[in-house]
Amino acid sequence: MRVVVIGASGTIGEAVTEALRERHEVIPVSRTSGAHRADLEDPASLARLYAALGTVDAVVCVAGRGAFGPLAQLDDAAFWLAFESKMRGQINLVRHGLAHLAPRGSFTLTSGVLAQHPTPGSSSITPANAAVEGFVRAASLELGERRINAVSPGWVSETLAQMGMDPEHGTPAAVVARTYVAAVEGAMTGQVLPVA
Amino acid sequence: MRVVVIGASGTIGEAVTEALRERHEVIPVSRTSGAHRADLEDPASLARLYAALGTVDAVVCVAGRGAFGPLAQLDDAAFWLAFESKMRGQINLVRHGLAHLAPRGSFTLTSGVLAQHPTPGSSSITPANAAVEGFVRAASLELGERRINAVSPGWVSETLAQMGMDPEHGTPAAVVARTYVAAVEGAMTGQVLPVA
Repeated sequence: MRVVVIGASGTIGEAVTEALRERHEVIPVSRTSGAHRADLEDPASLARLYAALGTVDAVVCVAGRGAFGPLAQLDDAAFWLAFESKMRGQINLVRHGLAHLAPRGSFTLTSGVLAQHPTPGSSSITPANAAVEGFVRAASLELGERRINAVSPGWVSETLAQMGMDPEHGTPAAVVARTYVAAVEGAMTGQVLPVA
Repeated sequence: MRVVVIGASGTIGEAVTEALRERHEVIPVSRTSGAHRADLEDPASLARLYAALGTVDAVVCVAGRGAFGPLAQLDDAAFWLAFESKMRGQINLVRHGLAHLAPRGSFTLTSGVLAQHPTPGSSSITPANAAVEGFVRAASLELGERRINAVSPGWVSETLAQMGMDPEHGTPAAVVARTYVAAVEGAMTGQVLPVA
């Protein structure tokens, strides 16, 4: 399959790209590096990307920003970042991609464990993730034989290590990547797939 | 209690206003009529409303627009309407209201049954409602003794009748209103309350 990975230079993105390359042609896309560039927060860049790529068999998104912080203190830019980037960006990736996805192709988006398990400070990230999951459930009803799912990762070991925390409390990126591969190669649709 | 009802001139809004008036001082707010006006889609109008009202004991929102239609056919304005109005508007109502809500006050927002039960055509309304529910769950963790919930109505009998459909397939607005009254007068927080 011809698989586009948006956010390919991130921690999860590198692991997903490596895992998919074992059996597929992977087209890595990043915001600031590589042959194919696109910014999830810029719909025009997504349209240009699809126009350049033609038809693809799978679109995987492991990009999307968000800000964590107290509800009463986040300013407008910080509060709405997750909605503009992770929510609106991923939804636009699907809306612009509908005309470029092969007949039995799939979209795999990224949600996150905060959707179901909010914590103080997640008043922006939790609803943005919940919206991604709601979109996946609803859009799947209109895609016919094409599929759409979301992977919902928790903490990633490499990210915890970068933050000076115990990587044992997270899941290695290579393990997280397996769920994305399962979504691309599987038959499920409209599902939110937790990472084991 | 001093209770603000946003969207008071709507089908549910009129019933909620009438039900709350039995035991509370209700301040009805509409977009285009009455003594107090505010537009959920205009954050500055929400800030002006709160400045004019001072401290309130409860904020109930039964406003918020959205467009139903095929994912592949909704244009940008139609697709993002539910996100700009029902999602962003209700969240802004809370963000701007934090400084004006009494110490044991409450917010009661409106979600909808499409959050959990998507149908073809709800690819915009389902995620916007899911985001409102996610926001309620997350924000409740930061509000101390103040509360926030969402009521999730299904079809309303009066709305069905207006559309020429069988009102028996819905719930009368007066019955829907009871769940809003329960949210205002109860002790629950972080909950999504289905309408019986």
